[in-house]
Amino acid sequence: MSECTIEELRAQVWQANLALEHHHLVTFTWGNVSGIDRDRGIMLIKPSGVDYENLTAENMVAVRLADGQPLAGQLKPSSDTPTHLELYRRFPEMQGIVHTHSRFAVAWAQAGKDIPALGTTHADYFYGPIPCTRALTQAEIDDDYELNTGRVIAEYIHSEQTMAIPGIIVNQHGPFAWGTSPSNAVHNAVVLDEVARMALYTLQINPAATSVDQGLLNKHYLRKHGKNAYYGQSNNA
Amino acid sequence: MSECTIEELRAQVWQANLALEHHHLVTFTWGNVSGIDRDRGIMLIKPSGVDYENLTAENMVAVRLADGQPLAGQLKPSSDTPTHLELYRRFPEMQGIVHTHSRFAVAWAQAGKDIPALGTTHADYFYGPIPCTRALTQAEIDDDYELNTGRVIAEYIHSEQTMAIPGIIVNQHGPFAWGTSPSNAVHNAVVLDEVARMALYTLQINPAATSVDQGLLNKHYLRKHGKNAYYGQSNNA
Amino acid sequence: MSECTIEELRAQVWQANLALEHHHLVTFTWGNVSGIDRDRGIMLIKPSGVDYENLTAENMVAVRLADGQPLAGQLKPSSDTPTHLELYRRFPEMQGIVHTHSRFAVAWAQAGKDIPALGTTHADYFYGPIPCTRALTQAEIDDDYELNTGRVIAEYIHSEQTMAIPGIIVNQHGPFAWGTSPSNAVHNAVVLDEVARMALYTLQINPAATSVDQGLLNKHYLRKHGKNAYYGQSNNA
Amino acid sequence: MSECTIEELRAQVWQANLALEHHHLVTFTWGNVSGIDRDRGIMLIKPSGVDYENLTAENMVAVRLADGQPLAGQLKPSSDTPTHLELYRRFPEMQGIVHTHSRFAVAWAQAGKDIPALGTTHADYFYGPIPCTRALTQAEIDDDYELNTGRVIAEYIHSEQTMAIPGIIVNQHGPFAWGTSPSNAVHNAVVLDEVARMALYTLQINPAATSVDQGLLNKHYLRKHGKNAYYGQSNNA
Repeated sequence: MSECTIEELRAQVWQANLALEHHHLVTFTWGNVSGIDRDRGIMLIKPSGVDYENLTAENMVAVRLADGQPLAGQLKPSSDTPTHLELYRRFPEMQGIVHTHSRFAVAWAQAGKDIPALGTTHADYFYGPIPCTRALTQAEIDDDYELNTGRVIAEYIHSEQTMAIPGIIVNQHGPFAWGTSPSNAVHNAVVLDEVARMALYTLQINPAATSVDQGLLNKHYLRKHGKNAYYGQSNNA
Repeated sequence: MSECTIEELRAQVWQANLALEHHHLVTFTWGNVSGIDRDRGIMLIKPSGVDYENLTAENMVAVRLADGQPLAGQLKPSSDTPTHLELYRRFPEMQGIVHTHSRFAVAWAQAGKDIPALGTTHADYFYGPIPCTRALTQAEIDDDYELNTGRVIAEYIHSEQTMAIPGIIVNQHGPFAWGTSPSNAVHNAVVLDEVARMALYTLQINPAATSVDQGLLNKHYLRKHGKNAYYGQSNNA
Repeated sequence: MSECTIEELRAQVWQANLALEHHHLVTFTWGNVSGIDRDRGIMLIKPSGVDYENLTAENMVAVRLADGQPLAGQLKPSSDTPTHLELYRRFPEMQGIVHTHSRFAVAWAQAGKDIPALGTTHADYFYGPIPCTRALTQAEIDDDYELNTGRVIAEYIHSEQTMAIPGIIVNQHGPFAWGTSPSNAVHNAVVLDEVARMALYTLQINPAATSVDQGLLNKHYLRKHGKNAYYGQSNNA
Repeated sequence: MSECTIEELRAQVWQANLALEHHHLVTFTWGNVSGIDRDRGIMLIKPSGVDYENLTAENMVAVRLADGQPLAGQLKPSSDTPTHLELYRRFPEMQGIVHTHSRFAVAWAQAGKDIPALGTTHADYFYGPIPCTRALTQAEIDDDYELNTGRVIAEYIHSEQTMAIPGIIVNQHGPFAWGTSPSNAVHNAVVLDEVARMALYTLQINPAATSVDQGLLNKHYLRKHGKNAYYGQSNNA
């Protein structure tokens, strides 16, 4: 069922990590993208603390989904690896995950507020508000912090509609986004930061601005993602 | 009366779509420009969901103004096509139309507020506030949403002075702008976002800032656009 | 006493106009720089409505200081020419003048507020707040608008300390800056927009932020501009 | 004990000064970086008022730590030299110092407010709020202003944990940052401005946003900087 080799996935994950910089989502090394080969039970992720300019397809780190151990000869994986693994284990639809400290998503995370669905830009991608998680407890911080970050995120994700809201912000931390591939996850991370930015400006203009009604939310989300979607070229276009 | 061939118009529409990216008005594929050949009854518009880097003059989609049908062998046109067509049908002065999700215009649209004419930058292009439309009703959303978007926009446009305020923001959605050509429409879309941005900052500095008086509005608008305009080079310069 | 030929000044004015774009002070053609040869009584200024990419040293427009008439064979000068001329006539120290619609200076102008001297960045260049002029009267707008703009600006400039505050914002319009040369005027226009931006953010963080005391203002302004200035390299360095 | 020659340090200081521009921390010449050779008692710093494009390794100015005098044949050092020297004398851990007028750090400085630790981006680098100093007294401004700036900064730095909060903002002035090398100091200056920016946006979204608890602060700071740090590649990776 795997649609590509490990080497092809390595290249995809590498390119997706570079795309973070292209889209101005990262300062220094503050972001990472992973991808997964579910048949082989292998996740590929950015190495920890390596500059984007020094990344290569080869130094993407292969980690076993089952136990989180890197394969032999690999660099140390991103310190956020246990968060990625936990999400992949719980949500089979996820094929790529991104974590960044992108500016506007972080601002909402630090504010401890869900990002409301204030317009159609948001509704085109996120079928409702983007949740801000609860804070982790002290116990959750002290032991297995990164694993617990994944567990707390999971509390807010709908198992059967994982892709309906393909991103979240972790309280006082920052955004995670996911998708049907590593590059799709990056796409969603870009949108998340952009709608976070628009929402800030909207509320500055009108603090009483309201979320879109369910009818408009349905219209925009479903014309791109529903069974009768009519956005984009059909397969035989 | 047509001033250029369909092929020339194709190239103009293609270039105008690329200009959206050059002016930082679009994220991903979130924008489209159209142009019209009124003699032949043909509108040309960006294809749906195609990246800007993959656009060519050739893949601009030709659609019949009369019934909205693409000519044979064309890609699927932008999902906003019925909005563009409705505006071209109602307002003969329009020769180019742009829709984007540019950041600051969207913020005002999500805020549900007209963009006030706070200074001469605005008055140089827009002869009064830039209206924010009413929200569409649920019935208008459910059937023929994009067509109804055009109809709602039309409620706010002066038929005989279509170019006096060459743009609008659709409630909880985003901006549409128009002009005497596809590139002029893009020009107006750039100005719309810039004055939206300046208006936000102005009100942050002084929430009681007031709109320009009619006298200053007249002066600036008419020195560029009136019968006795004295801005720019005259034709025989 | 002229330190350069008309041709050299032409090149300086052209380069200074291009610098506006390099420093991101202009959208489209929304800015102009002039320079003056006081011995010959000639001002050079950007032509009206010409894109920056089409500017050349040769198409800078030569205008007589005495009567504002362009020399033979010139393009039409910027519509703001009478404002520039009025300022050159009244203030002999001015050797270059800039007008832009730069974003943050315009926001303060639209807000109708002086830009307060909130820190040393401001004090390094402007020896006090940057004034926002009064609005022009209807009579001043109706006849000789651009000339009257210059007259209103002049009400706020200290004749003997013209360079102590080398810029101003015109109510509901935008900034003018000046300097000891066209490029120095551009330099001051860049600083004006930057301190306008910093002042906005400062007051967002702390609406009660106060202006610098006279002592700190003196220290920073005078260490760069006073008789005993000790900033930069001395002439024989 | 010196790990590099004076010539190598010259090149490092030059590159670190250029990095200020690369990271968009400076307008014109508004920033300087220094480095120190403690064995030889020599500090290297940017010359005063020289454009970044004209900087070379060779024109970095060598100054004696003991008495602040430049070595023979050097340009005039940055006017902020006495501040850098005072900090190097008092804090042996500092190996590089940066001063800029970066926009968001200046805004907090002008607001006269500490930058609160609102999230993990901050906690990854700064082990608590970034202090804003008291204003200098008139006497401190009148005589030895730059030296006194260093003394006032020193009031807020923990002698034994100099690197725990590697930056500060000087009241109504701007940021200073330091590090284990000139380039590390620039890195910290970039982070300082970024967390200043995020903090502004956070408080705009939620004026009641709170600082991170000590537990989360410990976790993030110590996983990068503590004895058991597990971020980045280990030395034998």
